[in-house]
Formats: sequence, C-alpha cells, structure tokens
Amino acid sequence: MRELLIALMLVVAFMAGGTQVEANEEAAKPNPVVKELKKVVEKVTKAATEVASETEFVLTPEEFEKCRVIYFDRCAGCHGVLRKGATGPDLTPNQMKRKGNKKLRDFIWFGTGGGMPGWGKMGTITREETDLLVKYIQNEPPVPPQWDMKKVKGSWKVIIPPEERPTKPEHDRDVDNMFAVILRDAGQIAIIDGDTKEVVSTIDSGYAVHIVRMSMSGRYVYSIGRDGKATMIDLWMKKPDTVAEIRCSLDARSIDVSKFKGYEDKLAVVGGYWPPQFVILDGATLEPIKIVSTLGFTYDTEEFHPEPRVASIVASHFAPEWVLNIKETGQVWLVDYSSPSNPGIKMIEAERFLHDGGWDSTKRYFLVAANARNKIAVIDAKEKKLAALVETGGIKPHPGRGANWVDPEFGPVWASGHIGDSVVSVIGTDPENHPDSAWKVVRTIKSLSSGNLFIKTHPNSKWVWLDTPLSKKSKYRTTVAVYDKANMAAGVFKEIKLADYGKAVHMEYNKAGDEVWISIWGNLGDAEKGKAGEIVVMDDKTLEVKTRIPNLLTPTGKFNVYNTVHDLY
Amino acid sequence: MRELLIALMLVVAFMAGGTQVEANEEAAKPNPVVKELKKVVEKVTKAATEVASETEFVLTPEEFEKCRVIYFDRCAGCHGVLRKGATGPDLTPNQMKRKGNKKLRDFIWFGTGGGMPGWGKMGTITREETDLLVKYIQNEPPVPPQWDMKKVKGSWKVIIPPEERPTKPEHDRDVDNMFAVILRDAGQIAIIDGDTKEVVSTIDSGYAVHIVRMSMSGRYVYSIGRDGKATMIDLWMKKPDTVAEIRCSLDARSIDVSKFKGYEDKLAVVGGYWPPQFVILDGATLEPIKIVSTLGFTYDTEEFHPEPRVASIVASHFAPEWVLNIKETGQVWLVDYSSPSNPGIKMIEAERFLHDGGWDSTKRYFLVAANARNKIAVIDAKEKKLAALVETGGIKPHPGRGANWVDPEFGPVWASGHIGDSVVSVIGTDPENHPDSAWKVVRTIKSLSSGNLFIKTHPNSKWVWLDTPLSKKSKYRTTVAVYDKANMAAGVFKEIKLADYGKAVHMEYNKAGDEVWISIWGNLGDAEKGKAGEIVVMDDKTLEVKTRIPNLLTPTGKFNVYNTVHDLY
Repeated sequence: MRELLIALMLVVAFMAGGTQVEANEEAAKPNPVVKELKKVVEKVTKAATEVASETEFVLTPEEFEKCRVIYFDRCAGCHGVLRKGATGPDLTPNQMKRKGNKKLRDFIWFGTGGGMPGWGKMGTITREETDLLVKYIQNEPPVPPQWDMKKVKGSWKVIIPPEERPTKPEHDRDVDNMFAVILRDAGQIAIIDGDTKEVVSTIDSGYAVHIVRMSMSGRYVYSIGRDGKATMIDLWMKKPDTVAEIRCSLDARSIDVSKFKGYEDKLAVVGGYWPPQFVILDGATLEPIKIVSTLGFTYDTEEFHPEPRVASIVASHFAPEWVLNIKETGQVWLVDYSSPSNPGIKMIEAERFLHDGGWDSTKRYFLVAANARNKIAVIDAKEKKLAALVETGGIKPHPGRGANWVDPEFGPVWASGHIGDSVVSVIGTDPENHPDSAWKVVRTIKSLSSGNLFIKTHPNSKWVWLDTPLSKKSKYRTTVAVYDKANMAAGVFKEIKLADYGKAVHMEYNKAGDEVWISIWGNLGDAEKGKAGEIVVMDDKTLEVKTRIPNLLTPTGKFNVYNTVHDLY
Repeated sequence: MRELLIALMLVVAFMAGGTQVEANEEAAKPNPVVKELKKVVEKVTKAATEVASETEFVLTPEEFEKCRVIYFDRCAGCHGVLRKGATGPDLTPNQMKRKGNKKLRDFIWFGTGGGMPGWGKMGTITREETDLLVKYIQNEPPVPPQWDMKKVKGSWKVIIPPEERPTKPEHDRDVDNMFAVILRDAGQIAIIDGDTKEVVSTIDSGYAVHIVRMSMSGRYVYSIGRDGKATMIDLWMKKPDTVAEIRCSLDARSIDVSKFKGYEDKLAVVGGYWPPQFVILDGATLEPIKIVSTLGFTYDTEEFHPEPRVASIVASHFAPEWVLNIKETGQVWLVDYSSPSNPGIKMIEAERFLHDGGWDSTKRYFLVAANARNKIAVIDAKEKKLAALVETGGIKPHPGRGANWVDPEFGPVWASGHIGDSVVSVIGTDPENHPDSAWKVVRTIKSLSSGNLFIKTHPNSKWVWLDTPLSKKSKYRTTVAVYDKANMAAGVFKEIKLADYGKAVHMEYNKAGDEVWISIWGNLGDAEKGKAGEIVVMDDKTLEVKTRIPNLLTPTGKFNVYNTVHDLY
C-alpha cells in the first residue's frame, strides 16, 4: 500500500503538470496533500478490488471467511490447513492455477474416484459456494494463528473442582458398562447405561467430536472436538456432566490418558492438527502442563514440513508412554510422560501419512495405517522401534483401532478394512509362536463393498463385524457384514441391513462382549421424522436385533468404558 | 503490484475522461493497453522507490545484502537471525522504530554498557555502514531459507574415503598431544605437534570456526564454522588434512562426537543456529543421517519460538547421548543416538538463554550458562533431569567448558568467570560427600577485570587460569590471571602480561598438564608485522613463558586431543 500511495502521488503529480513532490526525512508525518491522496487511494483500491474480483481470484473478506470455514470443515482433514496435501493431494495455489477453474469446479462438485467426495452433488455445499472455493484455493492459504500456553490456559475452565466432585458413584449403574456416544453433528455426547440402554445424560461437547477416551479408573470421559476443545465428564455424578474443559489447539483429532501403572487418572494428552503440537494436561482438572511442537522433517526425504499433524494417540500399557502418530512426517513418537514438564520423545521412522490404529492382543505392538501409502506400520512399544511395514494389498486402509482374534491357522491376528477397496487384510501378530505369519497379510477377505471405516470384535465373541458407511452403493451404507473368526476364508457369514436411512457406522461391544452397538447416523434436519439417528443393539449370539435406542441426534463413535480402558477390540 | 496496476489503470482511465475498462474472465491475458500501463508502472515504481529510500527505511538490493551480511557476522549471534533477541535485546522493526534513528545510530556506533560492542568506534564498521544498519533493522528481517536433507546432502564431500585412509599413523608424533588451533579470521585450522610445537598442517575450514572436537580414538578432528560447514581432519595422515566436509545449516556453533562405549568414532552431530535444527552424521564420512528440528516452545511462558538455536553440545560418557542446549527455549535436550535414524529426545526445562558449559569432574553433571539470566543450570545426565539452577552472582557467566578442581574446604568444585563482571563464581559439585556446598556458589573470587571468556585448569595442575580478552582496559585484554587452587580466597596469585598487541584468549593444557597454551589473537592485516597472532606456551610449574609459536594467523580456540576426548578441564 505504501508503494501504491507513492506511485499515485507521482501519477497525480505528473498528470497535474509536474508539481514537485517534496521529500525529506520529515515527510513521514501526514500532511493535507497526503490526506487527500489517501482518500483517493481508498476509493481507487475499493474499485480496483471490485474489478479484480471479477477477473481474478479475489474474494471479499466475507467470502474469504466463508470459504475458510468450509475449507476447515470439509477439506483440511485430508489436504491440510496449509494445503500441502496428506491423504488428499497438494492444493497450493500454483498447483491449483494449473488445473483451471473448470476442472477445479468439477473436482469439488463431483468428487473423484480416488476418494474425494462430491461435495456439491451430495448436497453439502451449493453451486455458489463451489465457485467461491474454486477462487479460494487459487489464493494463498491463510496461515492460521499460533495457539500457545497463554491461549490454551485462557480457554481452561474447571466447572466442578475435584474436591467438589462425588467421592463415590452417586448411582447404582455399572460405570464399566456405560457408553459415551458421540452425537456428532449436534456437538454433544450422550452417556448411555449399557445395561438399561437409558440415555443418562446428553452433554455439550466440542464441535464434531472425533474420539472419546476414558481414564484408567473408568470414571472420567475425555472427548476431543475437531475445534480442539477437550471436555471431561464425570461418570460418578448422578447425571454425568462436564467437570472441566480446555481448548488445546484450533483443530484436533486425538486425546488419550495415562494408562501405565502408577499413572492411572493422572494425565491426559491432546494431539493437535493446527497448530501442529500436543498438549499434556492434568488428568483431574485438564490444567495444561506442557506444549510440545511436532514441527519437523519428513522421515524419508527429510524435508521440513510446516504442518505435521497428530493423527491419533494410544496409551501404552508397557511404559509411561503415549504413542503419537505424526501424519505428514511419517514418524511415530513415543512420548514419555513420567515427568510431564520434561517429556521424552522417541522418534520412530514409520511411513507417511499416518492415520489411525490399535494394539495387538498383547498390547506390545501398535499397528497404524499409513493410509495414503496402503501400508500398516507396526511399532514395538517394548523395544521402541519399528517392527515391520506391511503392504495391506488394499487401497486406503482405515482400521479404526482394528480387531484382534486368534485365527485357527495363523494364530493371533489383527485386521483392517479399507476405504478405497472391498477387502479386509488380516495380519499375523505373533512373531514368537507364529514367526512365519508375523507382520504379513495372511488372509485377504472380500468385504461387501469399499467405503469401510471400522472393524470390530471382542475376545468373548466368535464374530468380526465390518461397516461400509462410505459405500458408493446406498444399500451397503446401511448394512454391516459379519464374519466367522473360525472360518474367515468363507467370506461374509451374514449381511445385516440395519436401517432405511442414514449410514450404519461404527460397532462397539458392551463390557460382557455379548452385544454389538451400531450407530445409524442420520441428518440433524430429520430429527422430527425420527431419522436423525439411533443405535441398533445386536445380540452377538443370535446376530438378531436385540433393541434400538431411538431418537439420537446423529450418533457416530461409541465407547464402552471397560473396553476402551482395556483396549479390547 | 497487482493492486497497483489495477489502481493505475483506473486512475489513467479516470484522467483520460472515463474510458471504460473492460473486465471479464479472459482479461488476465495481456493486451496492448495493459502492456503500456505496465511500462508506466515500472517507471513509477522505480521513481517511488527512490523517493521512499530518502524518506523511509528502503535499501537498494545491494545495500540490503551488505547489511544482511554485516548483521549475520556481527549481530545475529546475540540478537538472532529473526531478531527476536537472546543474549541481546529484541531488534524487531516495531521495537526499532520506537527508538528513532539517532538512538539506533549511537547504539551501533558506541555500543552500550550492557555488553553491546561499539562496532563503529572499534573500527569494525564504517559510518556509512552504520547508517545503512540503522535503516536495515527498521525493515522486516528477511526470513532465511530452509536447509533440508537435499541441501545438506548436496554439500557433502568425501575427499578421502575411509578405505583410502592410512591404517595406522603415518608419523611418529603423539596424536594424543596434538593440538587443533582455530585460526579464526583466516578460516583455517592449524594442527600443531604438542611435543615439538611444530605447525604440522594448516587446513582450510569453515568461516570463523567456532569449536573443534575430536573422535573418541583421537584420530579425527571435527570443526564447525559459523557458516555451518563441518570439516573432518585425519590426524593419522603424514600431513593431516580434510577427509570430508558438509554444510549442515547456514549458521552454526556446535559439533560433537559419540563418546559412549561401543559408539567411539561412529557418529557426529552438528547443532544449527539457522535453520534451528541439528543433524546427525556418520562419524567416518560425515554422511548425513537425520535432521531434527528444534522448533518449539519457550520452557517457561510456553510461547512458540521461531528460532530456538542449538548453542552448545557435549557428549555424555554415561549413555549414548548428546546434551544439546537450546538457547531461546531454555531447554536442554538429551539426544539418544543409539539408533541415529530414530533419535530419542529427553526435554529438560532449564533456563533461557542457554549458552556454553562443561562437565563436572565425574562427568555425571553438566553445568551450562543461561548467560542472559546470570544463572548456571545443572543437568544430571544419569537421572536425566535438572539438578539445580544456580545464581552465579555475576553478570553474563561465560564458562567455556568451565574448570574443575578440588577445593580444600568445599570439595569438588566447578567455576565460571563472567563477561559482564569481574568475578569468578566457584560452585560445589559433589552432592554426595559435600551436600551443603553442592550447587551453591561457595566462593566468589575477584578477577582482574570484566570481559572474561575462558577459565581453565587440569587435574595435574595446582593453578586456575583466567583470560579477560573483552576487558574495557586494554592492559587486561593481553593479560591472564593465575589463581592457586589451594588458596582461591587470596585472589589473583599472578598476573601475566603476554603481548603488546591483540587479545590473550583461551587457555588449553597439553596432555601431561604441565604446559598452558594461550592464544594471542591479532589482526590479519598485521601479519607482515608478525602481529596477526601467536601462541604463548607457559610452563605450568614456574608460570614462566616456555616458548612462543609465532606467526599464526589469528589463533583463538585450541583443542588438545587427549584433553578434549576425555573432557579434562
């Protein structure tokens, strides 16, 4: 703008017939001529912006903000807030300008075969919003602000301090069999009694909660919203409610607790997407203790990456450690929390772009999907090293936390389905007694369809369950498949259609392992029609519907206290 | 510039009587009118820049580059390349604009009492350069580029591969008593035979080498230039020479080797100033293995810092670990190199702004100066934690690696002098047998003057030596002080004037501990007069001059192989 001002001064001077512009060290002070010129400049700039918005990629501040929000909600997850690409490709302006407006419009409206949803066609965004986004992604991405301790601490609220909380449960419910259910689009969490199926409490949470974890005692529920807001719920209260909350970053996906002996209920950790950092919290109050940046270099090419996001976190049972999966740099960080202000980080080279994963049955090995590379990385939490990188043979593995069982031929196995492929990859996990099958795909089982998100079983069950909520075929979006652990080679044992609306997504067992809860994720707008969502409770013995928990607002992930604490899946 | 162009189009259109500017989606293509306007804009911009350079802080590209180089050489060390401040204050443009040109000119020309040198008065920079710098620091600092693995690897040269190197020493000299001497302003390293005092080899190195380390076997010398260039010299060669080199960053101060049993001569590490990172190297070839960013949060306020520099590194004898001192964030990082591609980092909260330090006599405790805070942080390398923070009672402690001896009253002690104060602080280091004196200043001894940089002793010596090269009094700049370990309370035992030019700086013992080598750091321009520098070899028994090694080009730091390998100081 200074250049503009001076240039205009000169232009005006020139046009006016060569009036001298006096320049000396005092000229920085405003004088009447400059003032007048400033007004002209303001007018001209406004006009220029209007012209430019028609010819190039200029957005009004309002349009820019609208796009920023849409981008954050719909695009940043796969492409990154700085648009460097991750699960989805690089969307930086130079890349985008090469494509041209028409192609970009089509990508956004119709999606692609590679996994990009057709946001327009699906009705998520309008034609006008699509056109704005086409411009938006040809502009430099706005660099979002830092979120440091001052901001983190400023967001921290203890609603009920520890000393004012119950000293024993105020109800006779079995806390271990309670479920925390994410009501995703409502921004809420429902606490449901697993025995009576009663919705005990519905609690406001962060925006579009991604996951939930429980403290080792089972008493506290910790949730993390996509907006980085962590909330802590006390299940001992007569009507469980939020006792503390904090915003640890502006965009987040992961939270976990300290599970190692001696550290039960002591600490929590939140993994950020933006800023790329994790925050260690006091487990009783969520008071922030330490922020650690995840900025660094990609594990393979060792290029600096400005946005290495914490994709998922699990807590080790072997050591006072969390396993943090750093998506863009492809590193797994074992974070030692034994002195939380002085954390230790063991950096393990794994694979880009790390996403989600879970423990094997012994909880020594952590298996995590590098989903854009179609691989599963196996981390040995005892030896603190990469045990293997396994090609799954499918496209975009998405295990959730995966599923563990004993295969009659190959011994202990862990399995993942795929978003981009209709196969389940079953991987041997017992290097000691089944060395030939360890860290190999021992079975590739056909699933109903691509678009799988979660797989689940329980040590007490003979079945493995698979959803397909992202299937291209609407039928499979509301259908789950059941496999017989003893005869996986036979393929799908039973196909169960669960609803005539929404998506059937995410299975969770009750504590006993004899019920499977499956969410029907409808639309908020269909609540009056009873189609915002429900949970279907399946009898795991008979594979018949046992009951339904109706009229839930867009349920997605569900977390049984006991199974979550003990990593049973 | 686009805004400028459009604004000018409108202005011209307006002045020309309302000619319509046609705007549509194809308008981005150049047309004749736009071409003409572009030419006008170019002229106007040039004129505008000229005007602005007189009225504000605009520099020509040549001036800017000149200032960038001066700033890098003279200012960045204390103020940071992004000018956020460290040992010196924050120099970001908003801070600078508030001071005004006159004050800034005076600071740069005359210096300050707080430690800022009078660069103009000293004759280091001219009046014109001072004026340019006054403008430069009111401009935004240029963000220097990244230096990733591609760049690091591109700079890597193996001049003599390991298989072509000697299999045993090609000479009869005692490698353990060789000295590597930094010829600072010549950009060279001299290898000197400690027995014969012969300059065996003079080798080109990085720019203004900061320090030198030796591999555990004593065979290899590793040096690091301020320009981030590491060179590796083989002392087994008849005429020792460079066998490999690499540039690990654009600005650096520290290098060390793997000293733990089983890792001798295996690895090296370079700590960067910019980019803020460290690089792990193969010890035999300098092949780069891993880059790790040091970006993160200040230990106390937990604000994100864009430039946390690796100030100094020492190698642990207790574990396969390096101790990295991260200046701006005030953290000490214990870097586990046992799997160099998968490093472990134990982050220890210490104090801002960490600088240099050394081991206590047991090599369990590392004492490092937080010199802007007048403190020494004590790191317990065995327990991997902060043992203490000690107020030194002086201004800007600068220990180098410090000095260890046994005080008759307080047992094992370690000491540091000060840049900003004429005191030596003696700190107890034996928590087991002298718990009352451990991590306390047990003696405060008067020194000749402020402006001390190094303190030195040897287990076989009864003396402690102290230099004062930055003294305000010219006499003390060429004088060293000797103290009697057995009677420190008596103060200076002997004051020894060593030269009538330059600065007497940095003491180093020979292997036997019966000679002290002291550099006389003259001016390169005075080489013909024999006043570029020399080393004065003192007899440590008689405290008399034993001999002089004359005609050296600006010698500063000297590193005896045996003492450096075994951390004897």
